[in-house]
Amino acid sequence: MDAVDALGTAAALEQAKKSYAEGGIPIGAALVQHVSAGSAPKLIACGHNERIQKSSATLHGEMSCLENAGRLKADVYRNCTMFTTLSPCIMCTGAILLYRIPRVVIGENATFCGGEDLLLANGVEVVVLDDRECRDLMSKFIAEKPEEWNEDIGE
Amino acid sequence: MDAVDALGTAAALEQAKKSYAEGGIPIGAALVQHVSAGSAPKLIACGHNERIQKSSATLHGEMSCLENAGRLKADVYRNCTMFTTLSPCIMCTGAILLYRIPRVVIGENATFCGGEDLLLANGVEVVVLDDRECRDLMSKFIAEKPEEWNEDIGE
Repeated sequence: MDAVDALGTAAALEQAKKSYAEGGIPIGAALVQHVSAGSAPKLIACGHNERIQKSSATLHGEMSCLENAGRLKADVYRNCTMFTTLSPCIMCTGAILLYRIPRVVIGENATFCGGEDLLLANGVEVVVLDDRECRDLMSKFIAEKPEEWNEDIGE
Repeated sequence: MDAVDALGTAAALEQAKKSYAEGGIPIGAALVQHVSAGSAPKLIACGHNERIQKSSATLHGEMSCLENAGRLKADVYRNCTMFTTLSPCIMCTGAILLYRIPRVVIGENATFCGGEDLLLANGVEVVVLDDRECRDLMSKFIAEKPEEWNEDIGE
């Protein structure tokens, strides 16, 4: 795993754990900017699902991360990877496509698989890590709070 | 125009004008719940683009409207129409699909056309009003603040 991926996956997982500790849905995300070879990658922002914490219908992990990043110019997004602990839903997929983020690294897609096909169809590089810690955290939450989880995915 | 559409289009346009008056991007939205025949439709929430007002990268008109609506059960969304003064971008399209909102009424799609094809492919009813007031408001804003507009659509 290179420096970009090491930074992003750790930050996203930390956010997911933070959300779980707050009683929230344990999905975290991080936006990392690629920089020139030899320089350290830049963590632009991170975030986690805020449905329960903020009664939010839009702040999924990736959306929260993009919101925390604030207003950015188009060329910044185009040199970034979005890291997320769980496969992005169709809303978050749309946000990734809006800003033409070229690469998405997904912790796991076993508990939920969102818009990966649409990302791929639009030329986005998609990496699925099948990370056990991400999967176990989501599985535990879904078993504990199935209604909140269903609400989060519109079911 | 029936009572649902009259309520929703007026609320969305009012929001777009409010945003313009605040110096913001003039796109408004409203979520209206269909009710039984003979009863008045219910305006669940409305909202407008908040890029400039809140330095927000995610609060497009439709997203702001969904956020203002707060946490709703799935069956509420499925009895709603989303009204928006401008064709929804791919992020807002994704949010509409996530919550399976079955009907979208669009003020105009001449200044920008977003994810309408994806909505249609997923069985969403799409109505485009080609409203002159919506179009004129967007055209004026784009001419006045082209950089803010490009940023809003990731360009």
